[in-house]
Amino acid sequence: MKRSIEDTSIVFIGAGNLATNLAKAFYRKGFRIAQVYSRTEASAKALAQLVEADYTTDLSALKHHARMYVVALKDSALSQLLPIMTSGREQALWVHTAGSVPMEVWNGLVERYGVFYPLQTFSKQREVDFKEIPIFVEGCAPEVTAFLKEVAATLSKKVYEADSSQRERLHLAAVFACNFTNHMYALAARLLEHNHLPFNVLLPLIDETARKVHELSPCEAQTGPALRYDENVINHHLQLLADEPRLQEVYRLLSRSIHEEKQP
Amino acid sequence: MKRSIEDTSIVFIGAGNLATNLAKAFYRKGFRIAQVYSRTEASAKALAQLVEADYTTDLSALKHHARMYVVALKDSALSQLLPIMTSGREQALWVHTAGSVPMEVWNGLVERYGVFYPLQTFSKQREVDFKEIPIFVEGCAPEVTAFLKEVAATLSKKVYEADSSQRERLHLAAVFACNFTNHMYALAARLLEHNHLPFNVLLPLIDETARKVHELSPCEAQTGPALRYDENVINHHLQLLADEPRLQEVYRLLSRSIHEEKQP
Repeated sequence: MKRSIEDTSIVFIGAGNLATNLAKAFYRKGFRIAQVYSRTEASAKALAQLVEADYTTDLSALKHHARMYVVALKDSALSQLLPIMTSGREQALWVHTAGSVPMEVWNGLVERYGVFYPLQTFSKQREVDFKEIPIFVEGCAPEVTAFLKEVAATLSKKVYEADSSQRERLHLAAVFACNFTNHMYALAARLLEHNHLPFNVLLPLIDETARKVHELSPCEAQTGPALRYDENVINHHLQLLADEPRLQEVYRLLSRSIHEEKQP
Repeated sequence: MKRSIEDTSIVFIGAGNLATNLAKAFYRKGFRIAQVYSRTEASAKALAQLVEADYTTDLSALKHHARMYVVALKDSALSQLLPIMTSGREQALWVHTAGSVPMEVWNGLVERYGVFYPLQTFSKQREVDFKEIPIFVEGCAPEVTAFLKEVAATLSKKVYEADSSQRERLHLAAVFACNFTNHMYALAARLLEHNHLPFNVLLPLIDETARKVHELSPCEAQTGPALRYDENVINHHLQLLADEPRLQEVYRLLSRSIHEEKQP
């Protein structure tokens, strides 16, 4: 009898933002989530309940017979924990989800391994639609890559292969396009709050800024005083930020960077 | 016979991104655009054709009998040109559209004046829907403010009063939320381009980053290595940017800023 791809049972190691969103997406597609591990019992339990899985806070209590183990931990915790979690479970397929961790981290620990990297920002509080999320996979062998592509394709229309070097570049670009962008929103929110203005007046602007780069390149889409090198406005803004030295530093550096980006 | 608000004839001084979008929006709503001025003939002509207006490149040739004059010039050009353009046209209503120029710039030049500030990023190549754009107005007298609100309400559902001090804060916040955000997109695009990866793989991430702050505050929405203070990843990214000192500087400052923003 042919086994369908959704018969793949999955153990999640990690119950953070990415693990939560990914486990829920797999669960909805009919995969069986066998177990969730987290160092924190509350996190492990919360995710396990959502996806009808068992949970543990003890890496040595990981189940032995799942088909795929998905490791979604903070990068700094990852490499030191891999030997513990893989020990005795070398026959399974192991993947991690970290943009900046090379596939070779699995070398010598297990035989079948790879990377499963969804390029998106995840928060537990917010559901995302995986269909549009680019998923970049890398496998230790062609049949592993093919299997990961098949698994990824159950979630998303946009599945690509990327090696570790491409993936770390994607991750770096994503830090700019997402993490730093969101920080710009946070600084804007703080400036408005200090002046008793509501953040939501910025939402149409934030939306349009994102929509614009669907049609124009970011260089074509750039506007504002730094691009025009309107020193009156720039200096006036720096004055307004006199009480906020960190924001002033950010304003100065990014204005210079916009100006230099324009030069050939 | 009652004059309807759309009988207001408007002269545009400026034919840049904002002037183009605003003039087109007024034109569509049935206002008569009497004339367009730009220093550059091609720009003046291009906008004039779109809105069936006359055009000029000579400020002294501005028509005398329009009801409203909308000045949308680069801030640095604004104050020195106001005396020339208003001379002999003191009876009309004059407004500028600059976030960071106080209303008092009109003082002593004309009797009826104000500010008409749509909080949005405009590019000539891209049409925007004014209905959702917050427009902040300020008038020299209650009846001027009321008139500007009425005019603004023909374009947008979101019309507010804001004094010059609030407006400059809004503009400053918009520089962070839009201009600096777009620059983050531009830097991400460059990083991908150097590695022959297409920019459009980032679009779902960019969209989700913008959508998230409709539901979560930017602080709640923050993710990434700087927030987790994942030094492995941060240092690795700084290494990847070794050939790009400016991007490295941006990465370092914004990572520190994200980390400090989290502290109480």
